[in-house]
Amino acid sequence: MHYKLCFIGFGNVARNLVRLLERKRGALEREYGITYSVTGISTGRHGFAVNPNDLDVNQALQLVEDKQSIASLNNYQLPITDSLSVIQHSSADVMFENSPINYETGQPAIDHVRAALTAGMHAITANKGTVVHAHRELSELAKSKNKKFLFESTVLGGTPIFATFREAMPLADLISFKGIINATTNLILSRMEDGETFDEAVKYCQSIGIAETDPSGDIDGWDASVKVAALATVLMDSPLKPQDVQRSGIREITSQMVAQAKAEGKRWKLVASAERDGDKITARVAPELVDASSPLFGISGSSTGLTFRTDVLPDYSVTVSEREGMKGGPEETAYGSFADFIRAVK
Amino acid sequence: MHYKLCFIGFGNVARNLVRLLERKRGALEREYGITYSVTGISTGRHGFAVNPNDLDVNQALQLVEDKQSIASLNNYQLPITDSLSVIQHSSADVMFENSPINYETGQPAIDHVRAALTAGMHAITANKGTVVHAHRELSELAKSKNKKFLFESTVLGGTPIFATFREAMPLADLISFKGIINATTNLILSRMEDGETFDEAVKYCQSIGIAETDPSGDIDGWDASVKVAALATVLMDSPLKPQDVQRSGIREITSQMVAQAKAEGKRWKLVASAERDGDKITARVAPELVDASSPLFGISGSSTGLTFRTDVLPDYSVTVSEREGMKGGPEETAYGSFADFIRAVK
Repeated sequence: MHYKLCFIGFGNVARNLVRLLERKRGALEREYGITYSVTGISTGRHGFAVNPNDLDVNQALQLVEDKQSIASLNNYQLPITDSLSVIQHSSADVMFENSPINYETGQPAIDHVRAALTAGMHAITANKGTVVHAHRELSELAKSKNKKFLFESTVLGGTPIFATFREAMPLADLISFKGIINATTNLILSRMEDGETFDEAVKYCQSIGIAETDPSGDIDGWDASVKVAALATVLMDSPLKPQDVQRSGIREITSQMVAQAKAEGKRWKLVASAERDGDKITARVAPELVDASSPLFGISGSSTGLTFRTDVLPDYSVTVSEREGMKGGPEETAYGSFADFIRAVK
Repeated sequence: MHYKLCFIGFGNVARNLVRLLERKRGALEREYGITYSVTGISTGRHGFAVNPNDLDVNQALQLVEDKQSIASLNNYQLPITDSLSVIQHSSADVMFENSPINYETGQPAIDHVRAALTAGMHAITANKGTVVHAHRELSELAKSKNKKFLFESTVLGGTPIFATFREAMPLADLISFKGIINATTNLILSRMEDGETFDEAVKYCQSIGIAETDPSGDIDGWDASVKVAALATVLMDSPLKPQDVQRSGIREITSQMVAQAKAEGKRWKLVASAERDGDKITARVAPELVDASSPLFGISGSSTGLTFRTDVLPDYSVTVSEREGMKGGPEETAYGSFADFIRAVK
């Protein structure tokens, strides 16, 4: 089967997704009989292109990385000037949504997903905003169109969490979960243990591209709260907004506190959790002092991990540990959307 | 959709599977539209019964637990006197295979699976022997019949490993894996750290039913070797026999060695691993001294865990931790087969 793909948002994650698709092109055809072409791209700052036959995606990568416009690749009868037109005219079967996140509204990502599903495409996103602000609506729309709305890349990079529950743990009732889901704050705390100040550790995270110029989304616990809300919304079937999460960040954790914890064989961690009590979900993001007996103690640097408590298995933990060349950056995040593509069409 | 089920082997795991099916009966119908009846049971010591309409499974549980024969429940036109006749006459859609394991041949479990698939049933087993001795043959037979051969319960209790790779991590190339996959030896080593002798710890494991009267299958690393072989066979697509695994057990680990490790902040663990190097797989089960920086250090008591290295994600670890009332026994092992049932028919 041949699938036409369009990309809305063409930043780091989307471009790594294209590279991963190209690298796995042979395996996709051999193992699943899947071939693909790219028929539309919408970028934030480098224009738009539609080519219903087959857009040269390697040229598009080159142009964007050279900071040039991709408009020269447009082969549609009209100039294309916005994302919704790319969706509308690309005749794609699958849309990959990677526009910048807006935590408060989930827009414009929600509009992109809605437009793609309405046009009969599968919609795959790495954008948490769509899940916390419109999971039920978009899932129902997808179902009514017999298409998929998938979002594996939103929580632990590209590591499978939603798919694991959906496919690998059917009818398991999730009672609670707890873990470390923001890599930036975990790396800051680890570097403070090694003697850096908070400001030095933040600067380091900015220098390697995992913290933003304004790092407050990570440091104040917003990113973790959005992820907790997304997990609870989907896995506990309980719509939860980020502002429903009791939230405190790591600003009040001083070098002295970190050093004292270390002297006692303990560590400060920014812990995210949610627990079901009847119909009510209590969700929380807050610093916690953990000792070596905690499964969170060993999750260091930019590693992350979650423990799930269900009615059918002992506590089930997933940990994602950085290693040389594999640190949970955009390349690995892209794998979640790649896997969603296979799940959507197979 | 209504499915007829038969059970070949009716020990602890199978009976817990029946109880789990009964507990989730409402959810199965509500979420997946699945209803079921039991039409055949083969026990090791309490006889055989076939009732193509609907066998009273709660009565069967009661009889076996009272150590009485289930032959009184047989409603077939002829007496049934062996497992293959149960398969043949049950007109089941799904067979659950839980006969005792034979590490050397995989029999009679392989014959049961072959008979069920040939008769057009899905075959679901908790028996590792079928995987290490006949994975390719049985998978191909299943495929030719458009049925499923599934075995999620064979490795980490009922915790999803095979399903996670198959469904949640498509086209990830597995480079290596490493972990603790035998709960009995891990509990023995943990209890030795707390001051018990090897013999005391073995006796404790026997008293709670996780070690056999002859505990050598666990202690000498056979059980772990069979699991490593099963994992490599399926996930690395490389048929590997238990005897291909370099194997040493924990008999040479003395109380002195455990105490000295503890004094140095380290722990002895029975570590299982496999690594691909070109077409060759090197697999190993052996005691290793690990320190607090190892993800294996925190896996204590009857907990187990595995770390997977792939080409697409940072190191991905799954840990299953015992908790009050959930220790990875037959009840949780049964969940793997329960989940396989849903995957097979949905």
